[in-house]
Amino acid sequence: MNYSDNYNPIISDEDIFSAIEKEKDSIGYYNLTDQDTSLFKEYAQTVKQKYIVVVGIGGSTLGTSAIYDFLRHTKQLSKKLYFLESTDPLNIKFKLGRIDLSDTLFIVISKSGTTIETVSIFKYINSLVKIDNTNTLIITESDSKLNTYAQRNNLKTFEIPKNVGGRFSVFCAVGLVPLAIVGIDIDAILYGAKEISNSFFAKEQHYKKIINKARFFVENEHRYNINVLFSYAASMEGFNKWYIQLWGESLGKIDASGGHQGLTPMGITGPVDQHSFLQLIIEGKRDKTLTVIKVNDFRDDLTIPAITLEGLEELDYIDNLPFSKLINMQADATIEAINNLKDIPCDVITIDNVSEKSIGMLMYEYELLTSVCAKFMHINAYDQPGVEAGKIILKSKFNNK
Amino acid sequence: MNYSDNYNPIISDEDIFSAIEKEKDSIGYYNLTDQDTSLFKEYAQTVKQKYIVVVGIGGSTLGTSAIYDFLRHTKQLSKKLYFLESTDPLNIKFKLGRIDLSDTLFIVISKSGTTIETVSIFKYINSLVKIDNTNTLIITESDSKLNTYAQRNNLKTFEIPKNVGGRFSVFCAVGLVPLAIVGIDIDAILYGAKEISNSFFAKEQHYKKIINKARFFVENEHRYNINVLFSYAASMEGFNKWYIQLWGESLGKIDASGGHQGLTPMGITGPVDQHSFLQLIIEGKRDKTLTVIKVNDFRDDLTIPAITLEGLEELDYIDNLPFSKLINMQADATIEAINNLKDIPCDVITIDNVSEKSIGMLMYEYELLTSVCAKFMHINAYDQPGVEAGKIILKSKFNNK
Repeated sequence: MNYSDNYNPIISDEDIFSAIEKEKDSIGYYNLTDQDTSLFKEYAQTVKQKYIVVVGIGGSTLGTSAIYDFLRHTKQLSKKLYFLESTDPLNIKFKLGRIDLSDTLFIVISKSGTTIETVSIFKYINSLVKIDNTNTLIITESDSKLNTYAQRNNLKTFEIPKNVGGRFSVFCAVGLVPLAIVGIDIDAILYGAKEISNSFFAKEQHYKKIINKARFFVENEHRYNINVLFSYAASMEGFNKWYIQLWGESLGKIDASGGHQGLTPMGITGPVDQHSFLQLIIEGKRDKTLTVIKVNDFRDDLTIPAITLEGLEELDYIDNLPFSKLINMQADATIEAINNLKDIPCDVITIDNVSEKSIGMLMYEYELLTSVCAKFMHINAYDQPGVEAGKIILKSKFNNK
Repeated sequence: MNYSDNYNPIISDEDIFSAIEKEKDSIGYYNLTDQDTSLFKEYAQTVKQKYIVVVGIGGSTLGTSAIYDFLRHTKQLSKKLYFLESTDPLNIKFKLGRIDLSDTLFIVISKSGTTIETVSIFKYINSLVKIDNTNTLIITESDSKLNTYAQRNNLKTFEIPKNVGGRFSVFCAVGLVPLAIVGIDIDAILYGAKEISNSFFAKEQHYKKIINKARFFVENEHRYNINVLFSYAASMEGFNKWYIQLWGESLGKIDASGGHQGLTPMGITGPVDQHSFLQLIIEGKRDKTLTVIKVNDFRDDLTIPAITLEGLEELDYIDNLPFSKLINMQADATIEAINNLKDIPCDVITIDNVSEKSIGMLMYEYELLTSVCAKFMHINAYDQPGVEAGKIILKSKFNNK
C-alpha cells in the first residue's frame, strides 16, 4: 500500500503573512501610514470657520468621529466638529440649530459620490446657505459624480484613493483633513499607525500577536460567534462604533463555499456597562470572546476627596484615590472575575494614554486584525455586496411613486 | 401494553400568563402604571435651576436618558439634563465644565445607596459646591445608607420601592422625577405604559403578540443567540442602550439546571447602521433575530429641496421628498431585503410618533417581553448575581493597598 495526500489542515502563520503581503499593493489602506500630509495641513491652516460639519455616513464619518471623541476631552480644540449622518429630520434640525451656518465649513464626504443620505442632506444645506469654495470642501473618488459637481462649481476637493475602502479610510483625507482642521496632530496619528505596521511587517511583536488572535477568533467562530470589546474610557464609545462597522462589514460575508460566516462585534464601555452587559458575559451563554481596552495613563489627577458623608462612612476607603486609578482598578477587577471563571476567552490591550499616537496604533492594529481574520476565513474583507439589495429596493420604491 | 407519562413538552400561553400574574404583586414594576404622580409633579414645579445633573449609573440613568434623548428634539425643554455615570476623570471634568454649578440641581440616584461610581462622583461634587436641600435631591431605597445620609443632612428624598429593580425602574421616581423637572409629560408616559399593561393583562392584542415573540426567541435561543434591535430614528440610541441593559442583565443567567442561558442584545440605528452592521445581518451567520422599530409619523415636514447639483442630476429623483418619508422608505427597503432572504426572523414595531405616550408604550412592552422570556427560560429576570464577584475583587484591591 501507498498513501499520498495534499491535506493541509493548518493554515500556517506564514501562509497568512504571504497573503497579506500579496495584497499590500492592491489594498490601499496598508500604505496610508507613509503618505505626505502636508497638503492636508496646509489646507487646514486656511480654514477660518468655527464650526466644521462633516456630511457623510458610515465609513465617511465613523473613524473621524472615533478619534475626535477620543481626544476632545484632553485638549482645547479651537473648532467644533459635527457630523450630519442621519436622514432623521428631527436630528438634522437639532444639529443644524446648534451652529452658526455663516461660520461653518461643510465637508461633504462620499466615496461613491452618490450616497443618498449625504446628497439629500447636502441638497437641504444648499437651500440654507450659498455653497462656494469658501465654505465647502468635497472629499470623494476622483471619477465620482460628486467630483464632477465639485469641478463644475470650482470647489476644493481631496481624493479618496480608489483602493481604500470606506471603513478603512480613516487614515486618508476622509479622517485626516477634518481632524487637522480642528487642531488634532494627524502626523502623530500616522506615526502610531506606522509603529504597528512596522512591527507587523517586520514580524516583530505585533506579527505573532495579531495572527494568534485572529487564528483563535476564526478557529472558534462557531463556538464564540460574538466578539465583545469592553473599553474602559467614556471617550471610546466612538471607537467602539468604528470597530463594529469595521468588523461587521468586513467579516460578515458569504464565503467561497456559500457559507454564512459570522463574527459579531459588540462594543461596550466601562465602568458603565458593568451595570448592564457584564451580567450577561459572566452568567450567559459561553458564546463570547472579550477584549478589554484600558488606558494606562489618563494624564489626569482628578481625585476622590476625603469628604465623609454621614451615614456613608463605609465608603471612605475610596478617599484620596485618583479617578484614573479607580477606573483601572475596576477594569482589573472585571478582568480578574472573568479569568477566575476560566471559560471565557479574554485578552487585554492597554494603550499608553489618551493621545493621537495611541489611537493611531489601536485603529491600525484593528484594521490589520480584520484583514488577517478575513484571510483565515477565505473571504474578501473589502467589499459589502450584502447591502446592495436594499439600495435597489429603495430605488424601485421611487420609481413606483 | 400500556403507556403513561407526564411529558409536557409545550409550555402553554396560559402557563406563562399564570406565572406572570402570580408575580404581579411581588415584582413592583408591573403596577407602576397606576401610581399617583402628583408629588413628583409638585416637586418638579419647585425646581428653579437650569441644569439638572443626575449622578447615577446603569438602571439609575439608562431609562431616563432613553426618554430624554427620544423627546428632546421634539420640544423646547426649559432645562438641560446631564448624566454623570462614568469614573473616567476626563469625562467627569468635561461634563462639569459645561454647566454652571451654582445653577444646578444634583439628583443622586442609587438603589442600594452604596454604588461606588455614584458615591465617588458625589464626593467630588461635595468638594465643588455646598450640598444642601436647595441643590440636591436623593432617590434611593428607604433603608439605604444613602437615605441615612439624606436624613442626617435634611435633604429631600424620593423612594425607590424595594421590589422595583434598577433596570425596571424608569417608571418610578428614578425616571419620572428628573423627566418631570425638565418639562416632560410623565403622565402621558404612564398612560402609554398602562395601555400595553391593560392589553396584555386583559389578554387582548399584546397578550398573544408578546408571548408569541418570547416563545420564538426562547425556543430558538441556541440557533439565534443574538437579538438585534434596529431603530430607525437617531433619537433612539438611548433606547437601544436601555434595551441592552434590560435584556442582557435580565436574561443572561444561569438556569435551574446550571446551564448558561443566552440571548444577546444588540442595538443599532437606521439609516446609519445600514452602512455598518447591516452587511453582517444580510450575509453573516444566521444567528440573529431582527426587530425593526419605525416611527410612523415624525410630525415634521423637513423636505429635500428640488435643487439640482450639476453632475449629480441622477439623484434628482429624491427631490421634494420629506426626510420623514425617506427614512421610513429606507426602513421598508431594509425589511423587504431581509424578508426576501427568507431565513432571517424579523418583526417590525411601528410606534405612532415621537411622543411621551409612544415611548411609554414601547418601554413597557419591552419590560413585559423580558419578564415573559425569563418565564420561558425558567430564570429570575430580576437579580444580577453575576456582577458581585467583580465588586468583591475590587473591594479586596483596596484592602491590599
